[in-house]
Amino acid sequence: MIIGIVAVGSELMTPFYQDTDSLFITQKLNEFGLEPAFKVVVGDETDKLRMMLELSLEKADLVFVVGGLGPTEDDRTKEVLAEILGKKLIFHPEILAAIAARFEQRGLAMPESNRRQAYVLEGAEILPNKVGTAPGQWIEIDKKKIVLLPGPPRELQPMFNEFVAPRLEGWRRGYLLRRVLKIAGLTESQVEDSLKDLYPHDPDIRVTLLAYPGQIEIHLMSLARNEVLAQEKMAPLLQAFLDRLGDNVFSSEGEELEAVVGQLLRQTKKTLAVAESCTGGLVGHRLTSIAGSSDYFLEGSIVYSNEAKIRTLGIPPELIQQHGAVSYEVARAMAENMRLKSGASFALSTTGIAGPGGGSPAKPVGLVFTGLASEKETEVVRNMFLGGREQIKFQASQKVLDMLRRHLLKISGERG
Amino acid sequence: MIIGIVAVGSELMTPFYQDTDSLFITQKLNEFGLEPAFKVVVGDETDKLRMMLELSLEKADLVFVVGGLGPTEDDRTKEVLAEILGKKLIFHPEILAAIAARFEQRGLAMPESNRRQAYVLEGAEILPNKVGTAPGQWIEIDKKKIVLLPGPPRELQPMFNEFVAPRLEGWRRGYLLRRVLKIAGLTESQVEDSLKDLYPHDPDIRVTLLAYPGQIEIHLMSLARNEVLAQEKMAPLLQAFLDRLGDNVFSSEGEELEAVVGQLLRQTKKTLAVAESCTGGLVGHRLTSIAGSSDYFLEGSIVYSNEAKIRTLGIPPELIQQHGAVSYEVARAMAENMRLKSGASFALSTTGIAGPGGGSPAKPVGLVFTGLASEKETEVVRNMFLGGREQIKFQASQKVLDMLRRHLLKISGERG
Repeated sequence: MIIGIVAVGSELMTPFYQDTDSLFITQKLNEFGLEPAFKVVVGDETDKLRMMLELSLEKADLVFVVGGLGPTEDDRTKEVLAEILGKKLIFHPEILAAIAARFEQRGLAMPESNRRQAYVLEGAEILPNKVGTAPGQWIEIDKKKIVLLPGPPRELQPMFNEFVAPRLEGWRRGYLLRRVLKIAGLTESQVEDSLKDLYPHDPDIRVTLLAYPGQIEIHLMSLARNEVLAQEKMAPLLQAFLDRLGDNVFSSEGEELEAVVGQLLRQTKKTLAVAESCTGGLVGHRLTSIAGSSDYFLEGSIVYSNEAKIRTLGIPPELIQQHGAVSYEVARAMAENMRLKSGASFALSTTGIAGPGGGSPAKPVGLVFTGLASEKETEVVRNMFLGGREQIKFQASQKVLDMLRRHLLKISGERG
Repeated sequence: MIIGIVAVGSELMTPFYQDTDSLFITQKLNEFGLEPAFKVVVGDETDKLRMMLELSLEKADLVFVVGGLGPTEDDRTKEVLAEILGKKLIFHPEILAAIAARFEQRGLAMPESNRRQAYVLEGAEILPNKVGTAPGQWIEIDKKKIVLLPGPPRELQPMFNEFVAPRLEGWRRGYLLRRVLKIAGLTESQVEDSLKDLYPHDPDIRVTLLAYPGQIEIHLMSLARNEVLAQEKMAPLLQAFLDRLGDNVFSSEGEELEAVVGQLLRQTKKTLAVAESCTGGLVGHRLTSIAGSSDYFLEGSIVYSNEAKIRTLGIPPELIQQHGAVSYEVARAMAENMRLKSGASFALSTTGIAGPGGGSPAKPVGLVFTGLASEKETEVVRNMFLGGREQIKFQASQKVLDMLRRHLLKISGERG
C-alpha cells in the first residue's frame, strides 16, 4: 500500500511556515509498521491544489489531505476534491448544530461563513472534531482511501488518535522500530567505510547516515510483526555497528553529547569547570542546558581577551607573548589553572580562531586547541575545523566535551 | 512558469526531520517575485524517488532537487535523474581533485566513497561547492530546468546565492521586498493591538506576525515591478509601524539582538563583561557569535554554584544566605562585582531558576533576575518567563541583552 500525505495551505508556501502535521501522522503510521511514500505541500489556489491532489490520488492508495478546511473562502480543499471525485457536497444540519453550539458556549455568534464547514462529501464518513469546527472526513472510492483532516495540530491530533488510528488497524504491517547512534570523532566517510560491508540487504532493515559538523548519526530502522521481533531483527546489526565503532558512539538512545557527559560525571561523582576562549560560553551553555547540571557543573570562565586570561586564570603574560593566545601551551595552562581555581575534578579549555577574521598562514581560521585537565594529567589536542564561525565554535565545543567523555569512559572502565 | 521543489532524503520521511531548505529557496525565489507552486518530499528509495521526480518534472518548468548527493550508497538522486532523463553520468577529474584537496587540508585521506561525488550528469553545468564535497548541477532539457543542490544548508545557501540566483534573473517577475522588524519587550498581542488598525488591504502588501519566546517579528512584504517601487509601496506602512513601536524595535534589517548590542558597544566605544548563573554561558555565546566581538567583549564568569559566586565574584555568603542565590540582591552584586573585576564599561548578570526542578512557591521555575551595572548605576529586573529550560535560558539572555541595548540607546541619545 502506497501512502501519501498532502499538506494544504498557502502559508506553507512562504519562507516562514512548515508543515508539521506530517511528522505527527508519520509517527502514528510507524506504530502500525506503515510509512508515507511521499509528502506534497501545496497552497490553496484551486488549479495547483487540483493538480497536486490528482497526482497524489493517482499514485497512492491511502492519502491524508491536511488543511484547507477552514470557514473562509480561501479554504478550497473539500470543493476541489469533490470536483476531482465527481461527488456532491452534502449539507449536514447536525454538524452545523455542533458548530453553532461551540460558538454559543464561548458567548459568541456564529459567523455566517462557518456554515461552509457543515458540508461533507457525498458518501464520506464524518470524523468528529471535538476541539474545533472543521470535521474530518473518511472517503473510500475505487479502492482508494482519502482522509481529510483539519490543519491545526490541536484539532488534528485527537481526531487522528480517536477516529483514524482504529481504522488503520486492518493495514497493520507490524512494528517499525527506530534507533539512532550518534558519533563524535569520525567523519561521515570514515563511518561509512568502516560499516558498509555490514549494511543489510533486507528491505525491512534500513540504515541512514546523517552528517553534521562534529557529529555523525546512524539511523537504524527495523520492521517486523511486533516490537519484540523488530528488536530481535535489529539486534545483531546494532551490535555489529557498536562493535566496529566502539567508543566513537556516544549515544544510542538519542541523547545529546552534553547529556552523556553529564551522566558520566554524575555516575563517577566528578565535577567540572570550563575555561572558554573561542567558544565564548557555548561549552557552558551546552552543559547547563541539561536539567540538574548544577550537580556537577561548578563554574566557567569566558576569558575572551588576553587580559582576562592573565587576570582571571593567571596565565603568565610571557606564555601568551611567546606562543600566542591560540597555542598548545595556553590551552594547557587554561585548563590546569581553571581546575585549580575552581576545585573541580576536571577542567576543559578552548582557545582558537573562530573567524572570519584573525587568521594567519601559521594560525589559520579554524585552528583550535582543546584541553582537558585532570588531577593526574593534562591532554591538549590541536584541531583544524572547517566552516563558518558558528560551525567552528560548535565543533570546538563538541571536541572538548568528547575528550572528557572518552576520559570518563576510560577511568570508569579502570575502576569497573 | 511553474516552479517545484523536491526535497530528497529518507530522514525527511521520519517523524524527526523536516525539509528546511525549501524555506530558504522560497525566500530567494520571492526576491525575484517568484514563488514555488508545490513542494514534494520523498525518501532515497529508487522507485519512490523516480516516481516523484518524474511527476515533478512533468508538472513544473523549473525544479529544484535538494539532497541525496552525498558520497554514500544510499544517496541516489543523481543516478535516478540520469535514468529518467536518459543521460550518462560523466566523471570529472577536477571535481575529484577539489574533493581530495578538502580532505588534505584537514590532514585526512579521502575515502574511496567520495569518488562518486565527482560524477555529473552529461551536459550539466557544474555549480561549485565551496564548503562541501557535493557539487550542484544546472541541467536544461526540453525547455525544463533542473537544479540539483546539496542538502546541508551551509552548503546549499552559499551555492544558491553565488551560482543559482544570477541564473534566475531572466525570469524575474518583479521584486518582492521583505523587511523584518524584530521586537523585544512586548508580547504578541501587545504588538497586534498596537498595529492592527494599520494593516493594509492591498494584496501586494502583506504583514505576518511571528511570535517566539522573547522575540516578536513583523514580516512585511511588498510586491512591485522593481525594487524602488516596492520600497515606495512599503515605506509609509513601515514608518507607521516604527512610529508606533519606537525603541521596542531592535532591528529592521534582520540583525540579531547580539549584533545590535555589539554595534552599539562599538559605536559608543564601550566594553562589556557578563556574570551568568542560570543562562550558563548563553549570553557570552550569543555575544561571541558575532565576528569581531573581541573588540568589546572582554570576559565572562559562569558562576553556576554558590561557591563560584562567592569565590570568583566575591558575592558575600551572607547575601546568598539572606536572600538566596536567585534574588535581586545577588543579581545586583554579580553585575557590580563583575564590572569592577573585569574593568569593563558594563557588566550584565543573570540568576534564576531554569527548571524543570528547583522551583518553589516563593521562587517558581521561570523566575529570573537580570542585572546591568554601569559606572553610574545598577539596574535589576525581576522576570517571570514561561516555557521549558531552553526557552527560559533564551528569554533571560534576550532580556539582559535588551536592557543593555536600551541603556546604550539612552546614553548615545544624551550625547548626540
